[in-house]
Amino acid sequence: MASGELFDKSETLALRGKLIGPTCRLFFPHDPIKMVRARGQYMYNEAGEKYLDCINNVAHVGHCHPHVVSAASKQMETINTNSRFLHDNLVAYARRLAETLPPSLSVFYFVNSGSEANDLAVQLARRYTGNYDVMVMDNAYHGNTALLMDISPYKFKRAGSSGKRDWVHVVPAPSTYRKIFQEDNIDLGKAYADEVKKQLGDLKASEKIIAAFVAESLQSCGGQVIPPEGYFQRVIEHVHNAGGVFIADEVQVGFGRVGSSFWAFQLQHGFVPDMVTMGKPMGNGYPLACVVTTTAIASTSSIEYFNTYGGNPVSCAVGLAVLDVLEKEQLMENAKIVGAHLATRLRQLQSRHPIIGDIRGKGLFIGVELVLDRNTKEPATAEAQRVIFRLKDELVLLSVDGPACNVLKFKPPMCFTKADADLVTTKLERILTDIEDVGKNGTLDSGIESGMKQKDVSLPGTQAFTDEPLKV
Amino acid sequence: MASGELFDKSETLALRGKLIGPTCRLFFPHDPIKMVRARGQYMYNEAGEKYLDCINNVAHVGHCHPHVVSAASKQMETINTNSRFLHDNLVAYARRLAETLPPSLSVFYFVNSGSEANDLAVQLARRYTGNYDVMVMDNAYHGNTALLMDISPYKFKRAGSSGKRDWVHVVPAPSTYRKIFQEDNIDLGKAYADEVKKQLGDLKASEKIIAAFVAESLQSCGGQVIPPEGYFQRVIEHVHNAGGVFIADEVQVGFGRVGSSFWAFQLQHGFVPDMVTMGKPMGNGYPLACVVTTTAIASTSSIEYFNTYGGNPVSCAVGLAVLDVLEKEQLMENAKIVGAHLATRLRQLQSRHPIIGDIRGKGLFIGVELVLDRNTKEPATAEAQRVIFRLKDELVLLSVDGPACNVLKFKPPMCFTKADADLVTTKLERILTDIEDVGKNGTLDSGIESGMKQKDVSLPGTQAFTDEPLKV
Repeated sequence: MASGELFDKSETLALRGKLIGPTCRLFFPHDPIKMVRARGQYMYNEAGEKYLDCINNVAHVGHCHPHVVSAASKQMETINTNSRFLHDNLVAYARRLAETLPPSLSVFYFVNSGSEANDLAVQLARRYTGNYDVMVMDNAYHGNTALLMDISPYKFKRAGSSGKRDWVHVVPAPSTYRKIFQEDNIDLGKAYADEVKKQLGDLKASEKIIAAFVAESLQSCGGQVIPPEGYFQRVIEHVHNAGGVFIADEVQVGFGRVGSSFWAFQLQHGFVPDMVTMGKPMGNGYPLACVVTTTAIASTSSIEYFNTYGGNPVSCAVGLAVLDVLEKEQLMENAKIVGAHLATRLRQLQSRHPIIGDIRGKGLFIGVELVLDRNTKEPATAEAQRVIFRLKDELVLLSVDGPACNVLKFKPPMCFTKADADLVTTKLERILTDIEDVGKNGTLDSGIESGMKQKDVSLPGTQAFTDEPLKV
Repeated sequence: MASGELFDKSETLALRGKLIGPTCRLFFPHDPIKMVRARGQYMYNEAGEKYLDCINNVAHVGHCHPHVVSAASKQMETINTNSRFLHDNLVAYARRLAETLPPSLSVFYFVNSGSEANDLAVQLARRYTGNYDVMVMDNAYHGNTALLMDISPYKFKRAGSSGKRDWVHVVPAPSTYRKIFQEDNIDLGKAYADEVKKQLGDLKASEKIIAAFVAESLQSCGGQVIPPEGYFQRVIEHVHNAGGVFIADEVQVGFGRVGSSFWAFQLQHGFVPDMVTMGKPMGNGYPLACVVTTTAIASTSSIEYFNTYGGNPVSCAVGLAVLDVLEKEQLMENAKIVGAHLATRLRQLQSRHPIIGDIRGKGLFIGVELVLDRNTKEPATAEAQRVIFRLKDELVLLSVDGPACNVLKFKPPMCFTKADADLVTTKLERILTDIEDVGKNGTLDSGIESGMKQKDVSLPGTQAFTDEPLKV
């Protein structure tokens, strides 16, 4: 067995089947990967095979970054206690984060996960506005608490869920590829914002007022949707006029991933939300997340908020170390350069492969939408699955997402290189060519086989995988 | 400045006031403590003063335990990724936890905090039963998500909260000290359980069915209430008959704290809940928590549950290390012996100090309820505050809690010694004598001064402190 292994892979899998909740799904459940080591943008399985990681946005500055590990270790040796005691790491980290934000966003609440952050943000919005209802974008995913499952169409629209609550209001995702408008050459930012205004007006007519409009700055699980310019600026105006606040969910896309700005909401020129939530990349794997808001919103409530681990000296030391690495290794600049390179390579593929319907994204957050027909835009769901299975066999980790599970999702560690981008796009080109050949010859079955190991084809895990796209 | 300090204490405090949410309260807000180092059951402030810690149940096996720190550091250097990949630490830890539990509790969901655990447990109960309502004990606190604030009377009964939701049902806390029954010599376990049965019957009559009865195995923030023998065994029968499930919240009291058993619910002979939630002590400060349930409940839902950090290799390495230390250092046995010694010393004080109305607890979880009159049981709230202020001045950390903020709350790291118990009870005796002298002489003001530094008396923080007792 490999160093660090306790069981054979088959035993690990058997124990997992017995001991772990079945709704905690494995990546590639029909043939899961056992990882024993990771470094930078690479992960290694028990056989020593080296995978290129294109999906782990949590390992933001690279898996097991020594500066981050060292900061955590040193602080764990010294003191790690709750924020009812004064400690410098908490305020030093808050001050450092404040430097990345507009001045109005200045009061921090530290928590353990993006879910805790979004849940708290909605609670704060409710207390500040005195309202209860929440408005969200279609296909959005905001986290796993009861409240967040209720405001995530990505979850509540699925079979087996309890459906939409009457206090949840859904507006169209502002997609520039799958537009809901027939007209050409319209201002999409304004048109989608007008939809929000209209719904808010309808709610007002039935005496409903929202506490918050909650939106990912760039929609991730919902299919990597990039809002058109001018959308958020107009939406926040409508939301304020209706008595609500705007919560920008940066859990998946913050901390420089978009390359040109530290926060993805800053892609919308001059836009400043009322609250921002942060998570995944923040602690490079250490559970660390945050809500930042205005003094006006923060000063409303008198109910104590206590979070056992939130803002403890270790989590803040880790957060500071992640910011150090981002700066020292110029990873935002890297995301910009490598992201642009990856996008160019993907667009070259698009020119040769009609299955690529759309490429969209910013920096190292890029979605590639596969379609069967560029005119009808029919989702190429099975083909997208085949692509990631084939890539997996070739030791590249990529995932699919979106309502039709047909969007290839790039969100690698920020140390991803041009050579990595070349490697994955070269492999992708060959796989797309194979899939297209199969399509021409009408031998879909052999296409599936070429993308998956023979033993996998009949296993139910494959189906489960398609039902529940992966958000890593 | 001390090693590890970045700012003078006054600057830390000023930055905190500016940057951190005001509802994230400080311990002793009128004169907070800045801690820079901790080890075992001791914490050190920036002046090098050494505090005896009687309250940090999170630093379960002792602050900064080297075995735990080393396990975390090693794993952080190797790999730390989400549970969509196979890793042995996850299953090894689940298997090790399963060994401490009744066989029916065998399916684990790993999360980051006790709040995430309780929130998920209620979601699982709702999906399994198809019901929505929740029944809880009066004064209970179950966590900080929107759902949990709604089911925590400790929070929703406070001024400024939104009050009780109509789907939340509250039964009396099964106190053996503040009994709700007039009769002497009745079976309190049965009597309190009958209250639950009656309420469930009333709900059924109005066509309401609960998804879950949620109870801390020993009520912590609610005033360290120890349920009478036979209570849970009867309650679960009534809850099952009514179509609900029983969730035992061990977030504050699990992992051997009660000394005689690993889980506090096991104090109720033969009782096996349908779900157990775990948290605080589990990771000795690392964010780590868990829900364990039956295969029947776990197999109901088809909606994927993904938790970014839950069950990752580092958190499980930490969890395993905590279990190692508990075993190697025989800390359960220590909790039993030292807890019994502390209880004996406290009972000696009680025989000499009428202000001690009740002493209750198990192992290293002990509440001391202060009253102005043993017959009326009028809470000695101000006196309890004075005790902890005085102890703080004498470098002992103790907190108060309960609905009237008059219960001194012992829940120290599990390495607490007999000498520590002697130290705190000796100091407590002198303080109680002083307070009683003040009472006799009618000079309450000077009593306050003797318990608090002069500058504190007029500051508003003291009031805030009384309003919101501390749950560390």
